Amino acid sequence: MTAGSFVDPNSDIIGRGLAGRPSLETALAWIDAVPALPAVEEVAAAEAGGRVLAALVPATRDHPEFDRAAVDGYAVRAADTIGAGGYSPLGPASAVVVPAGRPLPPGTDAVVPVEAVQPAPDGGIEVTAPLAEGEGVERAGRRLSRGAPGIDVTGRPLRPEQLGLLAELGAGTVFVFARPRVRLAVRGAKPPDADSLTPMLRGLIARDGGVLAPGQGAADLIVMAGRSGVGVDDDGAARLAADGGWLDLHGLALRPGGSAGLGWLGGVPVLLLPGEPLACLTVWELLAARLLRRLAGRADLSCHPAAGVLAGRKFVSRIGSVDVVRVRLVSGRAEPIGSLEGGGLAAAARADGFVVIPAAREGYAPGEAVTVHFHGANDP
Amino acid sequence: MTAGSFVDPNSDIIGRGLAGRPSLETALAWIDAVPALPAVEEVAAAEAGGRVLAALVPATRDHPEFDRAAVDGYAVRAADTIGAGGYSPLGPASAVVVPAGRPLPPGTDAVVPVEAVQPAPDGGIEVTAPLAEGEGVERAGRRLSRGAPGIDVTGRPLRPEQLGLLAELGAGTVFVFARPRVRLAVRGAKPPDADSLTPMLRGLIARDGGVLAPGQGAADLIVMAGRSGVGVDDDGAARLAADGGWLDLHGLALRPGGSAGLGWLGGVPVLLLPGEPLACLTVWELLAARLLRRLAGRADLSCHPAAGVLAGRKFVSRIGSVDVVRVRLVSGRAEPIGSLEGGGLAAAARADGFVVIPAAREGYAPGEAVTVHFHGANDP
Repeated sequence: MTAGSFVDPNSDIIGRGLAGRPSLETALAWIDAVPALPAVEEVAAAEAGGRVLAALVPATRDHPEFDRAAVDGYAVRAADTIGAGGYSPLGPASAVVVPAGRPLPPGTDAVVPVEAVQPAPDGGIEVTAPLAEGEGVERAGRRLSRGAPGIDVTGRPLRPEQLGLLAELGAGTVFVFARPRVRLAVRGAKPPDADSLTPMLRGLIARDGGVLAPGQGAADLIVMAGRSGVGVDDDGAARLAADGGWLDLHGLALRPGGSAGLGWLGGVPVLLLPGEPLACLTVWELLAARLLRRLAGRADLSCHPAAGVLAGRKFVSRIGSVDVVRVRLVSGRAEPIGSLEGGGLAAAARADGFVVIPAAREGYAPGEAVTVHFHGANDP
Repeated sequence: MTAGSFVDPNSDIIGRGLAGRPSLETALAWIDAVPALPAVEEVAAAEAGGRVLAALVPATRDHPEFDRAAVDGYAVRAADTIGAGGYSPLGPASAVVVPAGRPLPPGTDAVVPVEAVQPAPDGGIEVTAPLAEGEGVERAGRRLSRGAPGIDVTGRPLRPEQLGLLAELGAGTVFVFARPRVRLAVRGAKPPDADSLTPMLRGLIARDGGVLAPGQGAADLIVMAGRSGVGVDDDGAARLAADGGWLDLHGLALRPGGSAGLGWLGGVPVLLLPGEPLACLTVWELLAARLLRRLAGRADLSCHPAAGVLAGRKFVSRIGSVDVVRVRLVSGRAEPIGSLEGGGLAAAARADGFVVIPAAREGYAPGEAVTVHFHGANDP
């Protein structure tokens, strides 16, 4: 094989060098232009943890359904406590024991907390301060009114306390967005890189709300990993074309991840990810996660909360490409992890997060502010 | 029933009012004194997502296993490129096409990236600058050395990229901490509160790394929810005692959540949680989550990353108890959600996080700094 049999630098955008490649912004615009119309399905409310609500859930009942004690204590008539203070006893007939959450007994309109009374010798109680009507009472419908549209908790995976709220709303089932079906084709051919792509991508798909589509079944997103570059075995784009698909963009001014492609096959968006694992992960984090979350109906398009931190060491990058650098926090400052330690997934695996260095910058000096995209406290 | 048949204020710590109750710090010290010696089990590495490694994983092979091209390009002898610049062609025999990740061909010691060359008329290439030996080459064992103890990613749930790294390390199986078994007994008796506790607590147990213990089976943690207070139906502590258990602490200077209890049954730690759902959730977040995560071998004991934010409105609290206030961010400032909107789980469900107001403080004024414990970007 000779150089002459190799790639024509003009035949493919990634042969032209970084300067000629589309920017990350262009790729993000492509991602955000993909129509996201997720299907809706009905599931049991108690099983909806981690799912994304497709609609507000109305309350089917008042909560509470009756005026009730807000505290453990003694139900009284507020009028009976006027003048309380010092020694002001209420007889047993005027102060009815009531636990928090129980209906207010007839004829009472306030609840004295158990801590605010002293027992009186006759079996009654002594109240040390007068009560207003309604004190210590939670009125019917105070928390939720029947028919009210519930609480807007759409756009994010339901949290455990939100499952509790659904139960309070009286919801037996809820409508949630279907999980996008992802067809995954891993074709990296270079062990051990190839081995690492499948478990990593399966984990990323699940983390960002997708499910694996079986075989060649119907899919909402097609992810091809590996053989994305300009090497002689990089036939990813060619295979997509043979199947009747195409890439709108191939090659990005991004490091690592510069060989990524974005395209279509049979009306389904296609992401062509690099086979080098760290490049694959980087393109996932910046582009694939965002698309998959949009397809899942999510409003939070990143799982990496960003925060400003000072650089603890020098960050080196190249003008003309967006460079993504893994970092760890050392004494509260961000330090790059990378080539000194071999890089690759080992860098990502030990990182606290990553910094995205804009194409116009030549890195950062120690003490400059950088934005760290953190691995969530609750990853994966 | 009369006041006289009610609780003796001296019989139980929670009858004594906030001032007499143990502090949250005392409860946290109790939590941190529970021995945490999680069992270890062996699982397939590819299925270990979300699990916590119990031991470092050594590399079973070098990565890469051979000197390889670090970029798509042309393998050359660096010596042949001395004096390159302007017009300095290499013939087809001196420049061998090599894709990134492939072994370096014999007799070559550097790789020119495809972007840095021009094709020459004879089928060779033109190199525009001289290369040093090893340029564009990744040496064998550069990323990982066989037998090296791998990367320390213990103490937190394995992330997808860490699963990829395990594959690179050649790990077929890994040792992880067993998920703590939680025996859950929900006895809240006040609908709809009672209904909400079970789905919420099941979700919280799963989020913090536990599994439900079947029925009365062996457990690493016992969670009793409901009937924790001083009302006439609050028999939680009594039932625990009837089973042979006890509470070391009952009642905390904490709002909501002041009726919580901490104890033991048959050598297993017991958490008695309030039946009011927001109080139950609060005690879970401050105490139960921490204990469950310790029992799961986790180093990250909260799923709520904390950050300093300015108060956007006044925070009201009572001196003498730790008060937990749900907040949302409005224009980057923390605003309390609470009694005005009915509170309860509806407040927690719509919150961005919560603020823990120390017992010595009487709230915060607008503009003061507060620490918000945020719901993770990746909750649940």
